[in-house]
Amino acid sequence: MIKLIPTRIPIKVGDKFIAILNEHTAHKLDLHAGDRVLIKNGRKGEIRALLDVTENGEIRDTEIGLYEESWDKLKAKRGDKLVITVAEKPLSIMYIKDKLEGKVLTKKQIDEIIQDVVEDDLSDVEIAYFAAGCYTTGLTDQETVDLTKSIVEHGSRLKFHKKVVVDKHCIGGVAGNRTTMIAVPILTYLGLTMPKTSSRAITSPSGTADTMEVLANVTISGPRLQQIANKVGGFISWGGGVDLAAADDRMIRARHPLSLDPPGMLLASIMAKKHSVSSTHVIIDIPVGPQVKIKTKAEGQKLAAKFVLLGKKLGMIVKVVLTNGEEPIGNGIGPILEAIDVMKVLKNEKDAPQDLKEKGIELSAELLELCGKAKKGTGEAIARKVLESGNAYKQMMRIIQAQGPSKIPLVPGKFTQKVVARKNGKIVTLNNGLIAHIARTAGAPTDKGAGVFLNKKIGDTVKKGEVLYTIYAEVAERLKYSEEYDLNGVFIIK
Amino acid sequence: MIKLIPTRIPIKVGDKFIAILNEHTAHKLDLHAGDRVLIKNGRKGEIRALLDVTENGEIRDTEIGLYEESWDKLKAKRGDKLVITVAEKPLSIMYIKDKLEGKVLTKKQIDEIIQDVVEDDLSDVEIAYFAAGCYTTGLTDQETVDLTKSIVEHGSRLKFHKKVVVDKHCIGGVAGNRTTMIAVPILTYLGLTMPKTSSRAITSPSGTADTMEVLANVTISGPRLQQIANKVGGFISWGGGVDLAAADDRMIRARHPLSLDPPGMLLASIMAKKHSVSSTHVIIDIPVGPQVKIKTKAEGQKLAAKFVLLGKKLGMIVKVVLTNGEEPIGNGIGPILEAIDVMKVLKNEKDAPQDLKEKGIELSAELLELCGKAKKGTGEAIARKVLESGNAYKQMMRIIQAQGPSKIPLVPGKFTQKVVARKNGKIVTLNNGLIAHIARTAGAPTDKGAGVFLNKKIGDTVKKGEVLYTIYAEVAERLKYSEEYDLNGVFIIK
Repeated sequence: MIKLIPTRIPIKVGDKFIAILNEHTAHKLDLHAGDRVLIKNGRKGEIRALLDVTENGEIRDTEIGLYEESWDKLKAKRGDKLVITVAEKPLSIMYIKDKLEGKVLTKKQIDEIIQDVVEDDLSDVEIAYFAAGCYTTGLTDQETVDLTKSIVEHGSRLKFHKKVVVDKHCIGGVAGNRTTMIAVPILTYLGLTMPKTSSRAITSPSGTADTMEVLANVTISGPRLQQIANKVGGFISWGGGVDLAAADDRMIRARHPLSLDPPGMLLASIMAKKHSVSSTHVIIDIPVGPQVKIKTKAEGQKLAAKFVLLGKKLGMIVKVVLTNGEEPIGNGIGPILEAIDVMKVLKNEKDAPQDLKEKGIELSAELLELCGKAKKGTGEAIARKVLESGNAYKQMMRIIQAQGPSKIPLVPGKFTQKVVARKNGKIVTLNNGLIAHIARTAGAPTDKGAGVFLNKKIGDTVKKGEVLYTIYAEVAERLKYSEEYDLNGVFIIK
Repeated sequence: MIKLIPTRIPIKVGDKFIAILNEHTAHKLDLHAGDRVLIKNGRKGEIRALLDVTENGEIRDTEIGLYEESWDKLKAKRGDKLVITVAEKPLSIMYIKDKLEGKVLTKKQIDEIIQDVVEDDLSDVEIAYFAAGCYTTGLTDQETVDLTKSIVEHGSRLKFHKKVVVDKHCIGGVAGNRTTMIAVPILTYLGLTMPKTSSRAITSPSGTADTMEVLANVTISGPRLQQIANKVGGFISWGGGVDLAAADDRMIRARHPLSLDPPGMLLASIMAKKHSVSSTHVIIDIPVGPQVKIKTKAEGQKLAAKFVLLGKKLGMIVKVVLTNGEEPIGNGIGPILEAIDVMKVLKNEKDAPQDLKEKGIELSAELLELCGKAKKGTGEAIARKVLESGNAYKQMMRIIQAQGPSKIPLVPGKFTQKVVARKNGKIVTLNNGLIAHIARTAGAPTDKGAGVFLNKKIGDTVKKGEVLYTIYAEVAERLKYSEEYDLNGVFIIK
């Protein structure tokens, strides 16, 4: 038993307890960074804390450093003598090691891990080991089901008094793919409930949440989301703004440094988010193409089967649509450029991008038929009518109003650079990775008006000197950066 | 490009740069905890920092928090505008992911990883992923060689102008096993160079460094160690006090939360420490027994082959000795109790523990013959003579003098509890894990005088009421804690 004097570290670390010893004291006490200790301040308070060890001397040998949460909880005062004892490691550590060794975990063991993740009782290093185990030794179908359920059970949920709640998800990889913003107004206009939470860009020029944010507030709390859905049928909000599937967010954080996507965890992550908003009917959009995650139809079908099976075990009806992942959807890439595309489609403007419109209608039709709102073969006509009649646009305005309209003007960046064809020919393919890099270099998604507008797409014939695409930036020097890229290598013309 | 105002966080984090953003700003900038950023303060300074993200509001949206090292290096002042840009991830991240996927790494790739470990350019989470990869997918023999070399090349080294530098290492698991403190004086008396760095206890009641610390200072810098070895031929110091194999220490830290011992990493860790003190001839002591790491001779021989091979590739001559791992060596367990044992052996006292003496002589003999200082079959007699003549004791006193003698009196804890036999019989086995727990509970290694003294050992016949072992503590209440254990379950008497 060791008594140490508390010293206050004037920093908050979030809802968790962290204490620091200097290296010398830690060695003497045979304690290591990441160990758990019980710290007792007489009758004033007691905490279970994760230990950190510092190499430098600002914490003295007789002291223990306490971040603000720990200091407050212990009602610590300078001069107190805190009793430090070693606490047991949580059981979940053992299960994480089991997973690393390739053992199959039970629901109860997965629950232990997820509970400790949510309660901040596992460090990022420990969660990283769990992700590493899932990555190297894999998760069985049953483990994936259990993991998904466990994530949902240990997070907050949105519930609706509806028999049918529809949802869609795209596994990503295609720029400009803003079909959510077409489908949600169509389907909610038809009386369906569609509580859509979306992500921000991670490595892409814009995520649906970034693009929607140009039009409306997307950082909305759970109770407020429930109100909005009850009022207008649905919303398009940022998933990170609400505490759904909190364990998943922490696990994503630990996976981020290596961009680690263990297949089972990825499935669990997506489906937990659908399950936590009480979705009953879900369309999964899997783009297939040589430059996206899923390269072939066979690969897509294999993944599709996993989604359908997992959905079934969770009580959700899931349909997977394999879509064209060869080029961006719509013409704009970047938040404002994409939002302009979306509004043109909803307003039925002449120069609206037809691919975005048709894909939006297709996914809406699939959902209408999947949930029984439309008979087989009639979904497309119904969805098209809602869109072309202007009702989807009116509905979108209601949703924007309910979420809180934004004041951002729909104007792209004022600095532009046009890239023109160097020869006559037909566009046979385009480099998706490169176009995304260029859009990000121009400033997207941070600079909302930055990005790329595709004046041409695959299959178009072009003449020498014709504009292929336009780069937009809000800051002049951002355009210069893109000179590092082979701007003429974006389109392959033959 | 984003400009943020620096805010000082009055904490040192060691020789590295860490910056903090609040969650909101991080999301806006599409940055995540663990990302690397370049931070530039005009012409005043520039750093490459690891990013942390905080959930609470003490860092404002327009601010970036800087720990002291970063604040100082940037010559930051409140009101400065720092330019933040995303920095590329180090190449080593890619190689770590390769390892997780089971790929075999080249020396160059391992070098990248180890260099970034040493330069603090990899976070604990990233190093944990490397350990996980080594654990789940293993290291080839060549990777183990490369890892060992790389750890040595990226740390400081001790060099001696000697053709022969001897060393020994025990892979652990046996309490009281202080043969180093017998062998170093014998061999250095004979003119050999033996620069022995030892570890402190991690889960045991005492490590060689803890026991030696009772007699002399063990926290000694590299240049000073070199002087001592040149003067008296060798030393027994704490490995953690000198910056040898620094990468290994950081990797051990990342492995600690899961107590992860990837076999290749373990080998590399041990051999890197030998190589970094320029050892040429090394004896590895592998205790074999049902209660230690290595359960059978066959297992021991398999591991032995790996040590010999790795040694060969590093230019070291390695011999492995499989020893009895059934019970503690010597009678004392705990720093002072073990130091008393060692001094009794060196002083040739009548009640000196014979097993410690004989094992010390055996390992010394092996080293004498291995390095050619003694002809085959003559090593034992030579070592015994040095010990029994009192020359080893005199040499030990020289070493203690050179390291700096300690002032700790060689007196065990004053609170004792004797555990007696409940029946007549012969001791057939003892529970090593339990005896270690009891010694630790009594206060070892923190309380130097705490521990256990074994009055009897395996093979002894005992009478009912005879003392089997004695628990020593420096604090009375520490003795009470041991009541939780089945004290009579330590010895099995039949």
